Amino acid sequence: MAIDKYNKRAEKINSLLCVGLDSDFDKLPKKFKSLEHPQFEFNKWIIEETHEYAAAYKPNIAFYEARGDKGIQELKMTMAYLTKNHPDVFTICDAKRADIGNTNNGYVTSVFDWFGFDAITLHPYLGEEALGPFLKRRDKCSIMLCRTSNLGASEIQDLIVEGKPIWQIVAERVSEVWNKNSNCMLVVGATYPGEMKKIRSIVGEMTFLVPGIGAQGGDIKEVIEAGVNSKGLGLIINSSRGIIFAENPKQEAQRLFEEIKKNRKNF
Amino acid sequence: MAIDKYNKRAEKINSLLCVGLDSDFDKLPKKFKSLEHPQFEFNKWIIEETHEYAAAYKPNIAFYEARGDKGIQELKMTMAYLTKNHPDVFTICDAKRADIGNTNNGYVTSVFDWFGFDAITLHPYLGEEALGPFLKRRDKCSIMLCRTSNLGASEIQDLIVEGKPIWQIVAERVSEVWNKNSNCMLVVGATYPGEMKKIRSIVGEMTFLVPGIGAQGGDIKEVIEAGVNSKGLGLIINSSRGIIFAENPKQEAQRLFEEIKKNRKNF
Repeated sequence: MAIDKYNKRAEKINSLLCVGLDSDFDKLPKKFKSLEHPQFEFNKWIIEETHEYAAAYKPNIAFYEARGDKGIQELKMTMAYLTKNHPDVFTICDAKRADIGNTNNGYVTSVFDWFGFDAITLHPYLGEEALGPFLKRRDKCSIMLCRTSNLGASEIQDLIVEGKPIWQIVAERVSEVWNKNSNCMLVVGATYPGEMKKIRSIVGEMTFLVPGIGAQGGDIKEVIEAGVNSKGLGLIINSSRGIIFAENPKQEAQRLFEEIKKNRKNF
Repeated sequence: MAIDKYNKRAEKINSLLCVGLDSDFDKLPKKFKSLEHPQFEFNKWIIEETHEYAAAYKPNIAFYEARGDKGIQELKMTMAYLTKNHPDVFTICDAKRADIGNTNNGYVTSVFDWFGFDAITLHPYLGEEALGPFLKRRDKCSIMLCRTSNLGASEIQDLIVEGKPIWQIVAERVSEVWNKNSNCMLVVGATYPGEMKKIRSIVGEMTFLVPGIGAQGGDIKEVIEAGVNSKGLGLIINSSRGIIFAENPKQEAQRLFEEIKKNRKNF
């Protein structure tokens, strides 16, 4: 199964931590900005500082697209570096895509084949039929936005359909219908642990990508209590800005790693 | 207002036609495939064949991303060519993006500033708060997915919230709340003229981007009857594959242009 790569890595290093490579050019330390490949060189440094604690890396592609073809090139270089030097680390392209079926083939080729990512984040609004090109890739994970971590997430996601909020309907559809190839995951924000607990009760062992730790205010203890599955896995706990722009990224990654390990011990 | 550019162009050439530059490399005519910049050269040819009938152009970025940084470069070259040679044509990046607020800034920089598009398509799932970076750009249009043209659109979009389908809720939220800067539009598929009529009754003069003509089966007469606003505008009727991969793209663009003109006469 596509999730096996993540689970193996998580168990090998005893970590559920994902480092978000949201390497916004404007926020890079000065010494990187003047290099020929600033985002790549910064990522290489972050990867070397953090890989012993990282079960996964998750670049958000928006920060690379902001620099046009140069940014895309440097994200590709980052992926080539990761694949060569740390091939067992799980890689997620946080791209939040979704188009009609014919068009999604372009994103599949780009994210899974050209960049070589293990997983991609996706919007559910067009339904399972449109997402076919992603879902039929048994070797890759499709991570559906279910309950996002942003302040205004409730505007659409909390609308009630037959007594249930839409995030719950999405969780049910994905786990009962869309997951035919056992390659689906859900995005469930750390800022909503109540919802996370409910979603865990619906979807069995399915893995959650959990943004919202750190800068957005989510709490690791609450996330693990609410979200871990029966095997002590089922969570990819992401921190982006909190690690990569910390004064000492290695120390911050280690701190989160230790906190996850401590709270996971009870499971 | 950001929509003025489109309306002026539409009135100037008496057309609501949008040519979708979905220039899938695999489907390009042989003679373009061996060129140094195949997608750009193909687009240049299509633009020269069709511009007298085109109120807008809409590349779907997935077909460029499939070729990595090379495709991105050629989309940029296409935009530079359009801006220089046909500056009054409206340009839409069909990217179907939407992330949390901080991250959307990357897409804003990429699509509006680096590429220079007039508009972008967006998913509504994260709500108005997350879309702030797009919405606050008064000089650019934000086009929200409301009722998409794909077969499986109903799975999520037809869920009923307090007696209304979700596409109707999205139409209401966008027109009543999100449109503070008069820069919002909606995606309403040509394959659902009944829904289009209902949405027109809710949102007043707001413009719809209408995919689904041609390959997907939508009908121009039905679309114009259901969707045109009180000024005989309010529609951007897109055809992609139907024009660009026709045996004679110019002829096909002209045919659609004439059909739109004929059906619009009554308004």
